Formats: sequence, C-alpha cells, structure tokens
Amino acid sequence: MNLQEQLEQRINSKTKPLGALGKLESLAIQIGLIQQSTTPFISNPHILVFAGDHGIAATGLVNPYPQAVTAQMVMNFVQGGAAINVFTRQHGLALKVIDAGVNADLSTVRHPALLHHKIAYGTANYLEAPAMSGQQVQEALQKGKDLATQLAAGNCNCMGIGEMGIGNTSSAALILSAITGKPIQDCTGRGTGVNDAQLAQKIETLRKVHEHHQLAALADKPLELLAAVGGLEIAMMTGACLGAAANRMILVIDGFIATAALMIAKLMNPDVQQFCVFAHHSGEQGHTQMLTWLKASPLLQLDMRLGEGTGAALAIPLLQSAVAFLEEMASFESAGISGKPVD
Amino acid sequence: MNLQEQLEQRINSKTKPLGALGKLESLAIQIGLIQQSTTPFISNPHILVFAGDHGIAATGLVNPYPQAVTAQMVMNFVQGGAAINVFTRQHGLALKVIDAGVNADLSTVRHPALLHHKIAYGTANYLEAPAMSGQQVQEALQKGKDLATQLAAGNCNCMGIGEMGIGNTSSAALILSAITGKPIQDCTGRGTGVNDAQLAQKIETLRKVHEHHQLAALADKPLELLAAVGGLEIAMMTGACLGAAANRMILVIDGFIATAALMIAKLMNPDVQQFCVFAHHSGEQGHTQMLTWLKASPLLQLDMRLGEGTGAALAIPLLQSAVAFLEEMASFESAGISGKPVD
Repeated sequence: MNLQEQLEQRINSKTKPLGALGKLESLAIQIGLIQQSTTPFISNPHILVFAGDHGIAATGLVNPYPQAVTAQMVMNFVQGGAAINVFTRQHGLALKVIDAGVNADLSTVRHPALLHHKIAYGTANYLEAPAMSGQQVQEALQKGKDLATQLAAGNCNCMGIGEMGIGNTSSAALILSAITGKPIQDCTGRGTGVNDAQLAQKIETLRKVHEHHQLAALADKPLELLAAVGGLEIAMMTGACLGAAANRMILVIDGFIATAALMIAKLMNPDVQQFCVFAHHSGEQGHTQMLTWLKASPLLQLDMRLGEGTGAALAIPLLQSAVAFLEEMASFESAGISGKPVD
Repeated sequence: MNLQEQLEQRINSKTKPLGALGKLESLAIQIGLIQQSTTPFISNPHILVFAGDHGIAATGLVNPYPQAVTAQMVMNFVQGGAAINVFTRQHGLALKVIDAGVNADLSTVRHPALLHHKIAYGTANYLEAPAMSGQQVQEALQKGKDLATQLAAGNCNCMGIGEMGIGNTSSAALILSAITGKPIQDCTGRGTGVNDAQLAQKIETLRKVHEHHQLAALADKPLELLAAVGGLEIAMMTGACLGAAANRMILVIDGFIATAALMIAKLMNPDVQQFCVFAHHSGEQGHTQMLTWLKASPLLQLDMRLGEGTGAALAIPLLQSAVAFLEEMASFESAGISGKPVD
C-alpha cells in the first residue's frame, strides 16, 4: 500500500461517514504526501509579507493611493495595526515583513518582525524601461529561497506568502496576461479601488506596457518576464515559493499577487505546485483566471482583496484542522462504533 | 448617523482599501447590529450538539448505519474522539452535547459535556404515526429555549448548533420539502452515504411519508410539521434558535439538519434570521435549496457533510476575525497613512 493509500485508509477509519470532511480530507492527504508521513503535523507556521515599490506607481496611472503608502503600511505592520497583524495574533502565527524593495530608507527601523533585504528603492517605471535588471531578479530570487531555508531550519514547515506594494496588482495582471495569453482587460481589476475612469486608464496603460515589452514572447521566459514587468517583492516571493518546495514545506498562497509569483515559480519548477495550498479566491478580477490556469481550488471565498497574506492567515487554521482530525479523531474500532453500514 | 452607518464609518477608517475585507466586513456589521454596539465582541462561544433518534431509522429504509450509532457517537463526543471534539479543542470553543432523545439510557453517563434533557427514547416511526406528540414538541422547544437562556446567563453571546441522529437527514428533507414545496427527490441526499439503490429507496420512502402526513398542507404550520416528521433533536434545536434570538446571541447554523431547524424557527419568528450566521454550504444535496429559500450565503464551502456542528466550529474563528479587525486595526489617521486616494 503506498503512502496515499495509507493516508486514505487512516482517514476512512475515523468516526465519520466516508468523505464527510470534504476538502479537509484532501488537505490531510496533501500534507501527508508533502511530509511523506501518515502522521503529518504543522510546526511554527509563518506568514511572510514581502514589500516593494513599483516605478509605475509614481505616475499615478494605475493606482489611486500614493506610492508612499507602501512604506507607511510597512510601519503599520511593525506597529501591529494592520489586518495581517490582527489575524496572525488571533491564530498564533509568526509574522515577518520583508523589505524587498520599498522606496524609503527603513534601515533604521529595528524590529524583530522586519527583515531588511532591500534589493533597490523600488523598480523602474516599466513604461520606459525594464522594471528590474537580470541581476536584481537573481538577487531577489536567491534571497527568497534563502528565507524559506532559514525558516525550515527554525522548524517551520508551513509558510504563507503575502505582499504589500502600491501598484503591484498591475505587475500581477501583466504576468497573468503574458503567461496565459488572456487579454489585459480580462486580467486587470480595481486593485485598491480605482473607479471606472481610473480602471480604463489602468487597462490602457498596461496594454501599452504589454506591447512595449512584447510580453507575448515571454510566456515561457519567467526570468525575463519578471525583469520586464515584475516587482522586487514578487521576485522574492517567487524565490520563497521555490525555497519552500525545496524544503518540502507547505506553501500557502494568498491572493492575486502571491498567485502571480507562484505562476512564475511554476514555470521555473513545475513540481512547486504540489506543495501549494490556495488560501482564498480573491475578489480581485483576474484571480479567477489564475486559478483556472493552475487548476487550483482555493479553501475560502470571502470576497477579500487586501493582500498582506490576510487570506493565508485565515486559511492556515483549516490546515491545522486537517492534520488535527487525522491525528486526534477516534477510529470506529477504538470508539467501539458500528462503522460498517448495515446491509 | 444610525448604528449601521457608525459601524460602516468605523470599518472604512481602518488601514485597508474600502471593502477589502469582503464578507468579514458584513459580518462585523451584522454582529454590531445584533449587539447594538460599535464595539462588538464574542464571549464564551459554545457549540451545542443535539442528539436524538428517529423511529424510521430502525426500519433501515433510509439510513446505512444502524440506529445504535447515535448513542455510540454520543459516547464518542463525551470521550473526546469525534471531529467536533477536535475542532472545538482547536479553537477553544465550549462543547455541550444534549441528549434530546437518544434511544438508549445515558442517565448514568456523568460528564460535564453531556446534558440530560431526554424527552423520549427516540421518535415514533413516521411511516406509521406522527414522530412526536404536540406535547413532546412543546417540551423540546421549551428546553431548547431554556438552554440558550442559560448560556446567555453564563456570558455566552455566540452559539453554534449541530446535531447527531441516525436518520435525521430524512426529517430535514421532509421539512424542506414541506416548507418550500420542492419535490422530495430535490430535497433528499445521501446522508451518511447511501448508495444509488438505497437513495432510490430513501426517496420512495420519504414520498410515502410526505403523502401519508399530507405535508403540503403543513407548509406554514411549524408545530404540526415538527410533530409529524421532525425529531426531538431538531425540535430542541429550533427552540435553541428561538432562545438565541430572544437573548440577542449570534446564532451559528451548521449544515443541512441545523438549517432545517432554523427554517422551522423562522416560520415561528421571522426575526430569528437576523441573528444567524450560516457556517458552511453542506455537501448534502438539499442544503442549497434551504440556503436559497433563506436567501443565505454561508461563509465556508468545504464539501463537508458531517453534522455535529463541525461547520459551525470551523466558522466561528471567522466571526472572531471580524470583531478583531474592527477592534484592533489602526485607522488611517492613527497610523499616519495617506488614506485618501490621490486625484
């Protein structure tokens, strides 16, 4: 009997009708396969929030909030006042915020939750130039991988990824369009909340970018695609995805931008997806396209579109429920229950 | 400014894009309105599991598991080995199991989690007679109301309801069909897992019951409907729903059978629904019909169909997230963040 069959047998011995725990049962099997164990567990779960700025944001063409909000929100994370702080506190999850490329000097901010891995003060404006150099992409990927390896060394086997970066729904939309070939208007949403006129302007701007960088030719060139229209936080998240897979960690994907990073990671290593749990179906238009491309079914659908790893933080308790029922529930035999249906 | 507007204003001052927490925002408003407060909270949340047996189950016509499993599962709850034990432990929820009508003498089982409120040793077989007398229905309703009032007196303001009772998906299907007028085959599912032939037999049996008791005439007669085809655990759950509303508690409805009890409660007091949060969309066919009739949108969809209040236990953390973000998140002003979109 192989491991999957052993896991199924263990699940089916529990005091419940066959299949009655639905997606929690599939989760238990997936986590068991990730850990190569019939007694999987979740240890020291973390949420990593990657922060970076985007050159395009300074133009105001794609985003209603000013670029300065990225750094302000990083300070909010450090001070414990953001939604992700609330949800990680609620569920006892460790939280690390990574300055991957915020356009502000945060080096004097000393706080255990803030990790300084700035590659640059934001990306270049991809209306005019590639967002990043090839070297920057490589540095960000490597740093992301290293972060996952460091977490694994600290006995963490479950990592949720999220982000903060004014303008980064635009990068995610461009990545989605490039990889899937879907037109920009099907990939672009309201982000932090653009109105109709701003949305039209955002789509028009991203169409120009798509053409300028000839993104259609980069569908299977993840490094070039990242360099052209990615973000420092997105590239580092991609590295974190690859590092999580390399360390056989459970990788909890948050929303629209985190999923874009995972799509890039999947192009680099198709095996990465077997480690992924998709936390929620984001309210951001375009996430549905991503989930379809990945053939992924997320756990939650709460119409959230906040980023920061908030969906991941709310989903991790369901992963804990999955390993807990497998570990703690009585079997029909141990509980002395008539488990066999009557004829 | 009325309370709803005050709650909306408070939510919109938080450091996040407008509406970005989706259903958690609607939940925060609902809970605020239930508690008539801009600073709602969740106190001493409980899961109540109502257990009862069904005369029809002894015939084996509608259920693959023997009737004895109800009492065996109650013992499993008491010993801590069931799925609901795992999830309530995980989330620090209090659990009470109520013997509303188990067909076994449990009076010698002394355990703080087991409450003895047996009305009868199971219902009568509704193929031959009404399931309960009018007096039994009244007793069960009153006991359910009293339980809610006792919880409220113990500082509990959030009650999730679930059940255990071999054969009770059949009662729920009959109640659904009677109230909505939908044909039996659209209301009847596989319960604990009948096969195709057993499902056909279940539907045929329930059609006979429907006709025998002339259920079509009881669509707006909740007490008569309960007496004809209900269950002791269902009637007591209905009472608990009414009691929760009377005490302005948050009422978390689990799955197919709990929703049937709530439908009865709504016929008795239409106001009860404003106190309800629908935990999950059950995998049991027929639950969709119920949710449509109630115009309800549940929080989770995990293809679970276990009962026991398991869906409610997994959903309560989302309610806690909703009140926590409202209470704990910084405002744009307090965090010094550029909350106004740029022009």
